[in-house]
Amino acid sequence: MEWSARIERGDDVVVSVAEGAHDLGVAVAEALGERGANVVTLYGSDEVSRAYLNAHDGDFDESPEYERALFENADSVLRLGGGRNTAADADVPSERRQAYSKAREDVREARMATDWVSTVHPTRSLAQQAGMSYEEYEDFVYDAVLRDWSELAERMAKVKDRLDETDEVRLVKEDTDLTMRVDGRVSVNSCASVAYDSHNLPSGEVFTAPYATEGEVFFDVPMTINGRRVRDVRLTFEGGEVVDWSAAQGEAAITETVETDDGAKRLGELGIGMNRGIDRFTDSILFDEKMGDTVHLALGRAYTSNFPEGSEGEANDSAVHVDMITDMSEDSRMLFDGDVVQEDGKFWFEE
Amino acid sequence: MEWSARIERGDDVVVSVAEGAHDLGVAVAEALGERGANVVTLYGSDEVSRAYLNAHDGDFDESPEYERALFENADSVLRLGGGRNTAADADVPSERRQAYSKAREDVREARMATDWVSTVHPTRSLAQQAGMSYEEYEDFVYDAVLRDWSELAERMAKVKDRLDETDEVRLVKEDTDLTMRVDGRVSVNSCASVAYDSHNLPSGEVFTAPYATEGEVFFDVPMTINGRRVRDVRLTFEGGEVVDWSAAQGEAAITETVETDDGAKRLGELGIGMNRGIDRFTDSILFDEKMGDTVHLALGRAYTSNFPEGSEGEANDSAVHVDMITDMSEDSRMLFDGDVVQEDGKFWFEE
Repeated sequence: MEWSARIERGDDVVVSVAEGAHDLGVAVAEALGERGANVVTLYGSDEVSRAYLNAHDGDFDESPEYERALFENADSVLRLGGGRNTAADADVPSERRQAYSKAREDVREARMATDWVSTVHPTRSLAQQAGMSYEEYEDFVYDAVLRDWSELAERMAKVKDRLDETDEVRLVKEDTDLTMRVDGRVSVNSCASVAYDSHNLPSGEVFTAPYATEGEVFFDVPMTINGRRVRDVRLTFEGGEVVDWSAAQGEAAITETVETDDGAKRLGELGIGMNRGIDRFTDSILFDEKMGDTVHLALGRAYTSNFPEGSEGEANDSAVHVDMITDMSEDSRMLFDGDVVQEDGKFWFEE
Repeated sequence: MEWSARIERGDDVVVSVAEGAHDLGVAVAEALGERGANVVTLYGSDEVSRAYLNAHDGDFDESPEYERALFENADSVLRLGGGRNTAADADVPSERRQAYSKAREDVREARMATDWVSTVHPTRSLAQQAGMSYEEYEDFVYDAVLRDWSELAERMAKVKDRLDETDEVRLVKEDTDLTMRVDGRVSVNSCASVAYDSHNLPSGEVFTAPYATEGEVFFDVPMTINGRRVRDVRLTFEGGEVVDWSAAQGEAAITETVETDDGAKRLGELGIGMNRGIDRFTDSILFDEKMGDTVHLALGRAYTSNFPEGSEGEANDSAVHVDMITDMSEDSRMLFDGDVVQEDGKFWFEE
């Protein structure tokens, strides 16, 4: 609340509470009351969404005014995730999901224009997804979240500063040799505070919006896209766009992502994970992409925070933003303008 | 959905889901999807509210714009009650509760201006409050809700029509002889449909907004006010205002109610319960006040639906609306302009 959302007296705060996040919702409400903020509480239930989406014929109204007005007039949106079944909406057809997402772009933009923070409460469902006992998973979450954020912010600033002077990033590892342009972009030191334009808790990544991507990349970290398991994704880029793709498991989820719209064929994000409090993959993108010594790339929508003022219109636009992760801790190199800045998980400033 | 809320394609619907009402929330979301309505889902958690209110210093902002805008732009609000503890917010000081309620009058007015419907999902907590097993309570709720509403609407129309031609209502029973003026008012045939200006499900009452109340009344049905048990309330009215009150249990709750503001000293509602599908008191006002052969009176706010167009400004205004119930099934009479219209629970048109 102090570091992340920077809530002050009189702030208009929307809190979204997932099915399993009740206890965190109560704690957040108490903290908001103490600060004298205002609160509207949404129910972020995947089962409710699934029932609605599956019953709807798919011809959704464009960004209904009442919902847009809620977010347009809000200062902050705190999304408290943590459901009871990570596959709760796995049987919603992806066309339905995409149609809903497209129809509500203005609502999403209004929400993203607030000081939003997304976090999760540890639930049994997330523990199961991670293959961990509940108690073990609770420790994992609190280890990832309760960091010395200002110390990490300083370390990440080194990477941000150097990245901002870089024109081209190159990733080299097994089945991977990928180059991306990043000039004209501003990277974000995402240290879990809206004051740094960082909206996830935990965070711990430096990210930018790459373009003109060329080459091949292999994502060896398993993940879940829209409730479906996806493993060993390979993408080939030519002229900035995906031209070929495959996956050892869940290839259909990649195909649907790439075919959503034109923007989904381009990268929206290059993220460099630097949170070493996250010590293993748990099949949750909120944690996995922040893990130290990883890199993630997202197909689809870019964050406007990576664009200098006035050039936000250049941000890659898409109804989707799908992250995929590759491990950089072994047999790997990251180069900025030809200089190795990280090798086998070690940055140039680390010994 | 068909009878009560009359939702149509494109309607902007706010659904509030209580802690124990998840399953009903899923069912309602499905029905809204089928109709092509839009949905925003709120979390109506008493524990979240309690944490917020108890932590706040009590100096609340006046009706924050973001929340007001949500309701002002909504067509319908469906409140799905049913918590996990009916006393969840019993330790919120009543001044805090009242300050919050007063500060948010514009939000409440915006919400009440929609086609709102309030109902509950049967929960173990409500079953406990009723002193019933969960299975028995489920049957009770569905018996009360799944009525032949159009048939009941016709029977209630007889009472409404006669009440609308009446100047004075009198109630006579043990320790009770109370007269109220009702001329200049329009009674509501509350048959659980917004088309009848009826916003509760179940419903089954004819209600109006009395004034110039004189005499004494004894409420023999136990109830819970803000989480506190209240029993055997006696009120004395002079010149339309409560001048004396007592209760065998929970008298402080009555004192706090009466002392909220000037409007809380006057009656806002006279309701005649006619739903015989409700066959016992369950210590839940939503059901108790609709029970056949009962009458309830509310201190505080009147419903503007009882006022002819243009005279809504005459409605009694207050931050509270507290219902109290008296059993009219035995040794009792209700008179309209001196004529007995109900005696020992039988209306003039019943044999």
